[in-house]
Amino acid sequence: MRPCAPGRDRANTGFPNFGKHTPLKPPSQKPRFNKSWRDRKRPGSSSSSPGNVGHRASAPHERSETGHDGENGPLRLYGLHPVEAALRNPARLIHRLLLTENAERRLRESLGTIEPPIETVSPRDLDRLLGADAVHQGAALETEPLPEPDWRDLAASAGGRPLIVLDQVTDPHNVGAILRSSVVFGASGLVMTRRHSPPLNGVLAKSASGALELIPVALVANLARALDELKAAGFTIIGLDGEGEQAIEDLDWSRPTALVMGSEGKGLRDLTRKTCDFLARITTDDTLASLNVSNAAAVALHSALLARKRSQS
Amino acid sequence: MRPCAPGRDRANTGFPNFGKHTPLKPPSQKPRFNKSWRDRKRPGSSSSSPGNVGHRASAPHERSETGHDGENGPLRLYGLHPVEAALRNPARLIHRLLLTENAERRLRESLGTIEPPIETVSPRDLDRLLGADAVHQGAALETEPLPEPDWRDLAASAGGRPLIVLDQVTDPHNVGAILRSSVVFGASGLVMTRRHSPPLNGVLAKSASGALELIPVALVANLARALDELKAAGFTIIGLDGEGEQAIEDLDWSRPTALVMGSEGKGLRDLTRKTCDFLARITTDDTLASLNVSNAAAVALHSALLARKRSQS
Repeated sequence: MRPCAPGRDRANTGFPNFGKHTPLKPPSQKPRFNKSWRDRKRPGSSSSSPGNVGHRASAPHERSETGHDGENGPLRLYGLHPVEAALRNPARLIHRLLLTENAERRLRESLGTIEPPIETVSPRDLDRLLGADAVHQGAALETEPLPEPDWRDLAASAGGRPLIVLDQVTDPHNVGAILRSSVVFGASGLVMTRRHSPPLNGVLAKSASGALELIPVALVANLARALDELKAAGFTIIGLDGEGEQAIEDLDWSRPTALVMGSEGKGLRDLTRKTCDFLARITTDDTLASLNVSNAAAVALHSALLARKRSQS
Repeated sequence: MRPCAPGRDRANTGFPNFGKHTPLKPPSQKPRFNKSWRDRKRPGSSSSSPGNVGHRASAPHERSETGHDGENGPLRLYGLHPVEAALRNPARLIHRLLLTENAERRLRESLGTIEPPIETVSPRDLDRLLGADAVHQGAALETEPLPEPDWRDLAASAGGRPLIVLDQVTDPHNVGAILRSSVVFGASGLVMTRRHSPPLNGVLAKSASGALELIPVALVANLARALDELKAAGFTIIGLDGEGEQAIEDLDWSRPTALVMGSEGKGLRDLTRKTCDFLARITTDDTLASLNVSNAAAVALHSALLARKRSQS
């Protein structure tokens, strides 16, 4: 398994435009790191002070498990793949970059130059900053959340690629893995419910292994209404469900399609289920057992990719 | 997504026998719970004392994150699916069963009677016993590890189903999800390296969502030697690798097959790679991005199932 792809142009591919909404914007032309990063540093901090990192981590208001400084503090990403992918993403505004000497060497090998100023830290400094459970691999950064795309723009730029819709999938590891599979198998984007979805933070970004920088994620307040709009715009809405009447492997994916998945415990909510054009199941050997939701997503996206390749050949 | 299947007979299906090894044994005829459970309780404990549970959890030698009481204490499984599957498994020796009233009601709905004596606890008792991160859903039990099968017995009983081999996949969530997919897509069993594999504990069992009771897991000290033995016994050894020369979707799975997967960071070790008959890749849209290892396993197992179904029809 190899590292993630470099950042790519996610500009409009020319698919059905909803009229009043603009297609997915090309990557922002903002500078790769925040020119004002020096101003944002806390009083007394210095760009290469590991001790300072440790001090900050011990402040009682910090919530290292979420990758945030408190409720409204900076978002922190960590791990070699997420940090490398963030550094490659022109739309990612970076405030601080904290690297061990080893991590810096490894990132320089793949990236060449690194634009944001580097604060050299020890692995232990990062343990303290991020919490002992964060597999940071010597690399972390503080950043703004990516600009939030409108889900209609995602739909408009989908082209022949399926749009993934998550109905209250709460586990950040699963959502991160679904982002990876979405890149690998060519989904156009991810739409999640604004409530009961995990924050796009360090935990999710680590599971996404860089894919958070490569695929747009949009949030919607009312999922059923969004699905209705998608239908009106010509999308077929497929709900993934173990009791689906159609086998996912036999579907035609050449039309604009949204694939909707629910949480493992509850599955699709009733209203979501009713809004789907039909439900599809994955062919299994044991219909009583169940798949992890990210595994189900990977299998469905893989089937969709094979069908698209068949129809093109 | 629905709950896991009830325990099933995993007895020999009559496939190539290695001669000196017996085929996979049918489920043990041991009683479903340990008749001597009363003797095993700690001094001063009582079968319905939540306070005692809390007291035990606070003992400094306990390691709640591993689901163990200390290094050699009882194994603890938790969560409704893992506990239900364990109660259905005749080979599972249960020492203690701790349920909240809610969890007991839900388990009675699916199981009817529950044989082992129930210790009624509060959710908070289980939080203290298992650690705050364990999603126990009001259900936990203390048990012996399942009898460890010999990997040769797994191979002998594989029938037409692929054998999954993990080369130092260390993440318990990934291994748990791979167990689920193995049940769903009909793998015959899982072989892991004895070192650098996660323990078959509560964390893994929770991710496996009951599948740990349904599919045999064998450990080997020397993986390359085991693969050589499998080859000598007529197995085709396929390594899963992004640079594989063959597409996994085009393979013939009708012969006895072992599918070998490495860890996400390192992939297959050199010696493992050399021991494979060939390497196979999953067809992707973006060859630079990478899949989560459990997602890759699900896609490969799904492809194998479809191929087996095609060859049978």
